[in-house]
Amino acid sequence: MTTGYEIRPVGYVESTIKDRAGAPKQGFEGAPDAWLVFDAAVAEATRDILPGADVFVLTWLDRAERDVLAVHPRDDPANPVTGVFSTRSQDRPNPVGLHRVTVAEVHGLRMRVQGLEAFDGTPVVDVKPVLDGGR
Amino acid sequence: MTTGYEIRPVGYVESTIKDRAGAPKQGFEGAPDAWLVFDAAVAEATRDILPGADVFVLTWLDRAERDVLAVHPRDDPANPVTGVFSTRSQDRPNPVGLHRVTVAEVHGLRMRVQGLEAFDGTPVVDVKPVLDGGR
Repeated sequence: MTTGYEIRPVGYVESTIKDRAGAPKQGFEGAPDAWLVFDAAVAEATRDILPGADVFVLTWLDRAERDVLAVHPRDDPANPVTGVFSTRSQDRPNPVGLHRVTVAEVHGLRMRVQGLEAFDGTPVVDVKPVLDGGR
Repeated sequence: MTTGYEIRPVGYVESTIKDRAGAPKQGFEGAPDAWLVFDAAVAEATRDILPGADVFVLTWLDRAERDVLAVHPRDDPANPVTGVFSTRSQDRPNPVGLHRVTVAEVHGLRMRVQGLEAFDGTPVVDVKPVLDGGR
């Protein structure tokens, strides 16, 4: 096992989702609009993100449990226990959230996005354009 | 800016790609097959990954430069300088690689995947199933 690497957040999520009880399982299952609020230090990295862009947002799910290796998918005991690498559980060794969203509005360092299921205050790690074929 | 978080690799990539000169820009542009080699500590997390699975592999691009905020996309000076959050440049504040691949073979903790463009030895951070619509 190699040594660890440091994630340095580049911003955070503003959302009306405050806890697990209020959160949909996936963004396309009815997440409210949310805002990405970027740190001024990465303004240059964000400058070409425009409304309408289809992007992957990577977050650090800071309320996740990292010692969980298998779960009942969707927290439903009727689903058989499954290794977390075959699920989208937030509980996993490295709880990086992967969210495919559409950018709705851009106001400087603040961007409104559609379809982001993350708690208010979740750190943002990265943004990447979606390539052909959803890659 | 909040404090950092620690990525703890769960395995690494075995690939014939040894350096930037030999690497395609994206996995679907002719990357050779590669192997994911998982740490025994996460065996339970990997146990339900089967051949044919379409997954996102997240890596830590440990040879990337983290202080780069804008680049000429695809290293081509003819492309205008673009903020890295609108590109798939490996050089970015948090160099998490996002690779959509198909699992070809599984042998315990070793899995052969198709379409992974990462250097030999690149740390693996996470694996997630691809959901409907490439999410």
